[in-house]
Formats: sequence, C-alpha cells, structure tokens
Amino acid sequence: MSETQMPTQRTRVVREPERGVYDRAAAYRILDEGFICHVGFSLDGQPFVIPTSYGRKDANLYIHGSAASRMLRQMKEGVAVCVTVTLLDGLVLARSIFNHSMNYRSVVILGKATLVDDPEEKLTALRALSEHIVPGRWDDARQPNERELKATSVLRVAIEEFSSKVRTGPPIDDAEDLAFPTWAGVLPLEMKAREAIGDENSLAGKAVPEYVKGYTRKG
Amino acid sequence: MSETQMPTQRTRVVREPERGVYDRAAAYRILDEGFICHVGFSLDGQPFVIPTSYGRKDANLYIHGSAASRMLRQMKEGVAVCVTVTLLDGLVLARSIFNHSMNYRSVVILGKATLVDDPEEKLTALRALSEHIVPGRWDDARQPNERELKATSVLRVAIEEFSSKVRTGPPIDDAEDLAFPTWAGVLPLEMKAREAIGDENSLAGKAVPEYVKGYTRKG
Repeated sequence: MSETQMPTQRTRVVREPERGVYDRAAAYRILDEGFICHVGFSLDGQPFVIPTSYGRKDANLYIHGSAASRMLRQMKEGVAVCVTVTLLDGLVLARSIFNHSMNYRSVVILGKATLVDDPEEKLTALRALSEHIVPGRWDDARQPNERELKATSVLRVAIEEFSSKVRTGPPIDDAEDLAFPTWAGVLPLEMKAREAIGDENSLAGKAVPEYVKGYTRKG
Repeated sequence: MSETQMPTQRTRVVREPERGVYDRAAAYRILDEGFICHVGFSLDGQPFVIPTSYGRKDANLYIHGSAASRMLRQMKEGVAVCVTVTLLDGLVLARSIFNHSMNYRSVVILGKATLVDDPEEKLTALRALSEHIVPGRWDDARQPNERELKATSVLRVAIEEFSSKVRTGPPIDDAEDLAFPTWAGVLPLEMKAREAIGDENSLAGKAVPEYVKGYTRKG
C-alpha cells in the first residue's frame, strides 16, 4: 500500500508541483474520506461534469445510477472519463490578496468507465458503495431485489492513472508583506453532520442507529 | 431576476426530471453559497476535471489561477468548458437500499471560458472573486500590484446555458417497504467553520476580524 508511481504526462501536477502527491495510499485516504466525485466526460465535443456518489473497493472506484442517465448511457460505451474528488479543509488568508489560497486535498483519476455486467460484481459494488457512504447501513436496510438490480447501472473505473494534490498549513506571505497591518491565518472548514431527522413513517421504537448518530468522514 | 429559461437539449435534466430547475435566481443562490467549482475541459480527447474557486458578478462566473496552469493554458484558446457547483445538504436513508439518495443542490453551466484581457475588468473580477469567497477581505488585505496582476490569469464564463438540480426532503420509500423494521430519515450535512488560527507572524493587537469569526455561506 505504499506504492508510489511515477506520474504520467497527463497526471503530473503542473501548477505548484510541490503539492503533487503520487502515492497510492495517500490517494486512497482522500478517496475514502470523500463520497461525492465529479465525473467528466465529453459528448459531441462538449465536456460535462456531473456530481455523483462513489465507493471504492481495492483499486476500483464504483459509481452508479439509473440506467437512463445521460452520463451512464455515454459511459458504458467506454469513453474516457476523469473522476475528481475534492475535500476542502480551509480558507487561507494571507496579508496580500495574491497569496490567498485554500487548504484542500484532491484526487484526479483518468481512465475509462466500464459497465459492470456480472450480477455478482454488481452486488459487491453496490454493497461497497453503500458501505463507503454509510458504513453499517447495508445490513440494516432492505437489500436490492432483482428488479432493482436490473434498473441500476454500475460503472467501474480502475484507479490506475491518478494524482493527488494537497495544500496544508498557514499562508505564505512575501517577506515584505509581513508588516502589513491585517490579521492573517487559516479558517478551517469541515463537513459536519447535524442531528438526524427521522421521517414520518418511522416505526415506533426505531431509534437513530449509532452509525448515523456518530457519523463522520474522518478515519 | 425571476427569468426562467427553457433548457437546451444539453442542459435539460434527463434523469429525475422533477429535480430540474431552470430559474436564474435559483441558480444564482446556489452559485453564491458555493465557492468551489469543478471545471471540465477536454485535451487531446481526454476529459479533465479540476477543482478551483470562483466568484460571480452578474451573469458572469470568474475563475483564476496562475498563467502556467494546464487548465488555463487550454482555456484561453477558447475551448468548451463545463462548470459544475455542488452543495451537499444531507444523506437520505430510505428503508430500501435502492431508494437511498442525497439532498443536494447543483448547477451545471456549459459555455466557453474567455481570458479577461482588460486590466480594469481583471481587477473587478479579482475583487468579485475575493468578495465572493470572504466578503470584507479585499479592503482589509494588501491589494494586487502590477506584477501580481500580470502573473494572474482570469477567465470569464458567461452564465447563459445552465441548469440546476435540487433534491430536498425525506426519503421516498415504496409503500410495501414502510413496514421494514429500520430507521429511515435524513442526516443533514453542512460545511462549518471551526475557530480561526492566526499565523505565527500575526502582529500584536490584530484580532480575528468579524468577517472571519462569523463566517458562513448561508445568505
């Protein structure tokens, strides 16, 4: 899991190369904390970027959706995709506007999305997806029946050609700006769960499960 | 501001069409709450999706970055882009795995990114970008000098061809699942600021500004 791969010409971080990370374990940590990706593909020369949820199992990313979706219709024909996951950690307020930045961690995966045909891999992928987003939910819910499995498309993107980009830490000001009379620092941002809201059909005695109450994306 | 436009064939929401919103004011509310977009473009047949910050001024979206970036190098030649902004509001836990969903608001803009050449528009755009992300910061920081302005590229994307997609509310289970013995409901998620961290060069007496202390993206 500590494999570090050489970036390809397409995944090498060009801008701020010191932020480039090519370590597979580091990419997995980012992918495992997130669960929304932005999938890019091209259709008649027009790029589209669609947000969707995903799960990871080993070196595969799985995304799913209705078989009717424009994105999936296009993808199962095997076109090139880019899958990007971004975690925002904070605003970086420097003394100069020019040196303002953000703390973030992102992964960009280039590859092909392939339709998962095998029913067994499909079920495994859907379980991985569900457990990726809400660990503990799969066994606690009514699992997919045959009709639902048929209505669901699952796509596999191999995590082969990828790069991560990470910025952490305080602002980096030019030396001559250090005396500029303003506050400078980091405003940390995080995604937080509020209190869960049961729906109106909730059965008596069904309390909010622990995996919902204690929900966090931090490992 | 209550203009509703007909979707084009490219922006019409195909999947779950009841979630499609084509109202300009609704799109602006989403764009103004967010500040990270995912920009898609194609390079030698390969789609790329890059996260970056943005600002809105009237019917234009502005993004910026070092003139060296791969994305910007490509874009100033006037290629087609897709800019997507996604706000995640919650996990929707239904009784069946199949009906699990997310509450979210997203905007997809199709268009061309054009390099802003005019120095005055560039400065206006950078101010709009800064004020979009941290209102109040521009006047409180050292503003860009000529060298910095030259080193910064700003791109304009007109908000013309766009659509929004919104899901809110509780899970929608099939009637026959309502008796399934599990908790169901929504786990609301939100982006929260933690306490600001001043950097080690902070001048004595420079307290955390109010616009940082009270930071929120909610209007």
